[in-house]
Amino acid sequence: MHVLVLGGDGFCGWPTALHLSDRGHDVTVVDNLSRRAIDLELEVESLTPIRPIGERVRVWGEVSGRDIAFVRLDLAREYDRFVTLLKDRRPDAIVHFAEQRAAPYSMRSPQAKRYTVDNNVRATHNLLEALVTTGIGANLVHLGTMGVYGYGWSGSAPIPEGYLTVKVPTPDGDIEREILHPANPGSVYHLTKVLDQLMFAFYAGNDQLRITDLHQGIVWGTQTPQTVRDERLVNRFDYDGDYGTVLNRFLMQAAVGHPLTVHGSGGQTRAFIHIRDTVRCIEIALENPPETSRPRVFNQITETHRVSDLAQMVSKMTGVEVANLPNPRREQDANELNVRNDQFLALGLEPTTLSDGLFEECTEIAGRYRHRVDPSKIVARSVWRAGMPTAEDLVVRLPVG
Amino acid sequence: MHVLVLGGDGFCGWPTALHLSDRGHDVTVVDNLSRRAIDLELEVESLTPIRPIGERVRVWGEVSGRDIAFVRLDLAREYDRFVTLLKDRRPDAIVHFAEQRAAPYSMRSPQAKRYTVDNNVRATHNLLEALVTTGIGANLVHLGTMGVYGYGWSGSAPIPEGYLTVKVPTPDGDIEREILHPANPGSVYHLTKVLDQLMFAFYAGNDQLRITDLHQGIVWGTQTPQTVRDERLVNRFDYDGDYGTVLNRFLMQAAVGHPLTVHGSGGQTRAFIHIRDTVRCIEIALENPPETSRPRVFNQITETHRVSDLAQMVSKMTGVEVANLPNPRREQDANELNVRNDQFLALGLEPTTLSDGLFEECTEIAGRYRHRVDPSKIVARSVWRAGMPTAEDLVVRLPVG
Repeated sequence: MHVLVLGGDGFCGWPTALHLSDRGHDVTVVDNLSRRAIDLELEVESLTPIRPIGERVRVWGEVSGRDIAFVRLDLAREYDRFVTLLKDRRPDAIVHFAEQRAAPYSMRSPQAKRYTVDNNVRATHNLLEALVTTGIGANLVHLGTMGVYGYGWSGSAPIPEGYLTVKVPTPDGDIEREILHPANPGSVYHLTKVLDQLMFAFYAGNDQLRITDLHQGIVWGTQTPQTVRDERLVNRFDYDGDYGTVLNRFLMQAAVGHPLTVHGSGGQTRAFIHIRDTVRCIEIALENPPETSRPRVFNQITETHRVSDLAQMVSKMTGVEVANLPNPRREQDANELNVRNDQFLALGLEPTTLSDGLFEECTEIAGRYRHRVDPSKIVARSVWRAGMPTAEDLVVRLPVG
Repeated sequence: MHVLVLGGDGFCGWPTALHLSDRGHDVTVVDNLSRRAIDLELEVESLTPIRPIGERVRVWGEVSGRDIAFVRLDLAREYDRFVTLLKDRRPDAIVHFAEQRAAPYSMRSPQAKRYTVDNNVRATHNLLEALVTTGIGANLVHLGTMGVYGYGWSGSAPIPEGYLTVKVPTPDGDIEREILHPANPGSVYHLTKVLDQLMFAFYAGNDQLRITDLHQGIVWGTQTPQTVRDERLVNRFDYDGDYGTVLNRFLMQAAVGHPLTVHGSGGQTRAFIHIRDTVRCIEIALENPPETSRPRVFNQITETHRVSDLAQMVSKMTGVEVANLPNPRREQDANELNVRNDQFLALGLEPTTLSDGLFEECTEIAGRYRHRVDPSKIVARSVWRAGMPTAEDLVVRLPVG
């Protein structure tokens, strides 16, 4: 099938584009290169060296014999061009990654908050409206987040896949209703994914769009079977306080001898998934569109871990100490987490576990590229709310090459 | 207190500004005059003749001896100017009407859908972020809609004021949770009010903003004790298919001998409030800010009626027949409606009922200004979804003035 990958130059988008191309699909990457622009703004780079998008697709053509088209387009700002593109390409499916995706970045300044809301809401709404107005019945798969649910909200009940059955008291006794799981976003970024959900629900119901929303856990890992085929295809590895995700940050910190930065007690339990499984999940979602006028929701996670346990695991493996820093987020100090992910398992996902991939990640990526680390970018600095305690720099000396 | 009325030139905003000024508050109207611009776009005017905003505030000064300041500013597009205004005026309270407010308009074209989302989401988010960044602890009151709840969702249970207590099944038995009432928006306009709710919940929790959200029913009536003091202060009366609300449309239709346009069976039960009560409710809300870091929600309604009953009532009063037209909305053909409004009643609201005001409205407004009707604007034309049946024009001859 012909798939548009919106945001196909980013951390999840690029390996998805390659995976789908490798599986025989006809892929067009659409991206405004905003993730690269934010690197410039933050004065930081991916630990892994990222080649220009033109070189990336050219190299992919050389090693695979398959073409990926690239269109530079800003979905939030170039609606008319996007409508023209849709009419021209008439894709069978669309994967939507075209959003600002870092919670700390979304909280770092008034400008970043406003950019995150404006960009993400407009991108999603432009996409939905463009599908309605062109009448193109493409199956839409969107990358959401587990963060829409919040943590510890439902007691001992596992977090369901999107919809929660509740009992509503009435004068005639309790009635059962299946509702979109109540939203408990922890940042402006997470808030935009909640807003997305409601836009999906409306457009699926009113206009019969076929939409799948993937509530993804924290991604770790870097490479997929496609991105390792040439160093110029390597995926991003973000380690900075804004875009780095917790486990990748621990691995990079260990590689350069920086204390492992745990915000708060580390008692937070979170859901994880390897980037290799992300790309498989997206393919599964594309192959299994919803049959009703309600968005289908998958929880895109494979295992759960307590943050302090991850830090201890990496510390034990590498001998680097753990540093507890103030927590900028308004969240419980500790929580249990039990998440349903039955649908992807039933559809054939075979998870990559931490024990499979951690050692490889540590040596192949964090160790190999540690000379590229800028130590001043390691500590998270976003001020999430007025008056919050902030972390001081943890000064480290970079090890020699 | 000093109150900013955002959107203070509109149908609810203008009478609110006058009411608050009359009650001794220091009022600044902030408006981009977008409602007037949409009149130009739709080639229609308020049935009542609306004077320029400068004349409106000048006349108010003459008849009341009280100043209202006017600032022309686009909240969605002029964030920096708005921050400067906030720092300059340091208001004690803000009333936020600065959104595109018509459901049919929000569905009439791709442009209108996108404008409604972009304008409403940005306006609300700019406002919230500006309050955080300036640290001005103004009490914020927002005009929402009963339409966020949907109709007929909760069986025989009355619609609560914003929050619903549900039972969530867990392995340890049911647990009770109070949740934001599940959203069931019927148009892009209603969707934006749902998005607003979630932004309010986030900013109230993360930044301790004090926010009240008023879930208003369908407003009818035109005048308040302030707007009748001079004809140049008159409030809007919209009768067209986009901005006219159902009861005002029936009154205008009756005044010109146009069949009363009922969409669908008319079995829809809706909640209503007179504009006189709207302005009182807003004052009550301003005086009773929430005490917790959760938005306070009031249902701003005074009575409920079945649309067909209203049509029959007006038909009987005037002898004009009822015409049933196709219903563009995806909604139940008929529903019961039981809405809690205990909070406003407990805080002293004395409702204006239909029986109090209907005859006056009919003669003073619809009758008096019927010569200003453009019959071609009466029938609603928005296409809410592909393939829906649309209404043909109902040709009428205008009565001699």
